[in-house]
Amino acid sequence: MGTALASTLLAAGYPTTVWNRTPGRAGPLLVSGAVEATSPVEAISADVVIVCLFDHASVHEVLDPLADHLTGTDLINLTTTTPEEARELAAWSSTRGIRYLDGGIMAVPAMIGQDGSTILYSGTPEVFERHEQLLRSWGEATYFGGDAGLASLEDLALLSGMYVMFAGLLHGMAMVGSMGVTATSFVTRAQPFLAAMTETFPAFAETIDSRRYDAPDRQSLEFSDLGKLVRASTEAGISPAVVQMVQDLIVRQRDAGFGDEDFSRIYESIAHPLTTESSAP
Amino acid sequence: MGTALASTLLAAGYPTTVWNRTPGRAGPLLVSGAVEATSPVEAISADVVIVCLFDHASVHEVLDPLADHLTGTDLINLTTTTPEEARELAAWSSTRGIRYLDGGIMAVPAMIGQDGSTILYSGTPEVFERHEQLLRSWGEATYFGGDAGLASLEDLALLSGMYVMFAGLLHGMAMVGSMGVTATSFVTRAQPFLAAMTETFPAFAETIDSRRYDAPDRQSLEFSDLGKLVRASTEAGISPAVVQMVQDLIVRQRDAGFGDEDFSRIYESIAHPLTTESSAP
Repeated sequence: MGTALASTLLAAGYPTTVWNRTPGRAGPLLVSGAVEATSPVEAISADVVIVCLFDHASVHEVLDPLADHLTGTDLINLTTTTPEEARELAAWSSTRGIRYLDGGIMAVPAMIGQDGSTILYSGTPEVFERHEQLLRSWGEATYFGGDAGLASLEDLALLSGMYVMFAGLLHGMAMVGSMGVTATSFVTRAQPFLAAMTETFPAFAETIDSRRYDAPDRQSLEFSDLGKLVRASTEAGISPAVVQMVQDLIVRQRDAGFGDEDFSRIYESIAHPLTTESSAP
Repeated sequence: MGTALASTLLAAGYPTTVWNRTPGRAGPLLVSGAVEATSPVEAISADVVIVCLFDHASVHEVLDPLADHLTGTDLINLTTTTPEEARELAAWSSTRGIRYLDGGIMAVPAMIGQDGSTILYSGTPEVFERHEQLLRSWGEATYFGGDAGLASLEDLALLSGMYVMFAGLLHGMAMVGSMGVTATSFVTRAQPFLAAMTETFPAFAETIDSRRYDAPDRQSLEFSDLGKLVRASTEAGISPAVVQMVQDLIVRQRDAGFGDEDFSRIYESIAHPLTTESSAP
């Protein structure tokens, strides 16, 4: 990801100094005009310092010894962190006179700089404004607000949707695989079907924002009971854990007396784990 | 759903006799030319008998007393059942001289007869061939083979993907909701993002069909660790159960020594719940 980010900056004409924890990774970037720093401190003489590392701990590992050199700089951290970790880094920066902007990358490396690449930002507004043109060289740049945790939260929320969707797909593949249907054959139907089903998302959102789970055209929790899916999975000799997870959310609302309300009521099982009561709008 | 199926047949010019377990539901269909049967046996004088009920048990409840009258007919059952239940109904039909075709509807009632409506079929091939034109009045008609359980299996596999995807979306909404971001706002980003991510499905399918989880361009299980998502969910005060389900599948493969293999290796956690060993292609 670091290579993709740096090469896009070089292509856009920004003088770029690069440093990687594993030396010798900068080869192709040097051909494109990058300067390789032999220590991280050498990469700080820039207008803006951009960090993209493995996790929150590795960010501290690299930046803590450099804190004095970072004072007065704009620091943009594209490492995937939790909202709490982003806030911790913002506070750490603040006490050291560093202007912190947190970013969550919604793209794989090959997408950086291309259509469909989005990076979400939150933290110091001036850093976003000052470098907006640079940020847009990587793709769409969306600013969420001053709380440094917001971009991470949105990033992790979208990634949750993605990984859970993948698990659902793989569960479907395992079901048909039990009867010898290939995953490749299944995907020719599952891909257009699931892509089309994303078009129902706005209706869910409306129901959830208004907490109107009893709207007249609802598909009820009773109707959406996944007992059949759990049973069919077990009968096929595969683990029912993936669909059992959804069924558990359904059963909890049903047992609380909401069986004839909309399927999206399972939101309440997730958002309010300690109570099954309806939260009024 | 029964009303949608019958009204589409009437619109396509098929003389249709209708019967519902709750009398008085046929009103609008009668205006379109349907004949209402006062008992189910009156609906059997037809070229083909089409059944769409609540579940497997209700199919037997309605058909068992009619078995003698059904002998020699083509029976198409569009009730959502498990593959085992479809096979049981096929065997029940076979011993009574009934030609059984099982169908799985991949549409909501409003979609029947429209673009995007698909019904999956399996069972007696002659029934599918003889009535193919009628079946196509409801939407795309795909025949999977003589085993009556195949259509159900595919149907339930696609529905698994859909419901699990919905749970992932709702989890994302609950995460951002904890910071006051509305579901409606989240969906403007989540819908295009998840729709775009379905384009990665064919690559997963290829890896799974070949069991080449160690391909060079893989995104590894270590990299896909969802510990951050679980932690961020808990910190946001919501239930981590939805993402914990995926993390459990990841951890199982990682603990078995496959941490540097492709993310899609969690397929093995689902397909082979009793072993963590790699299954050779």
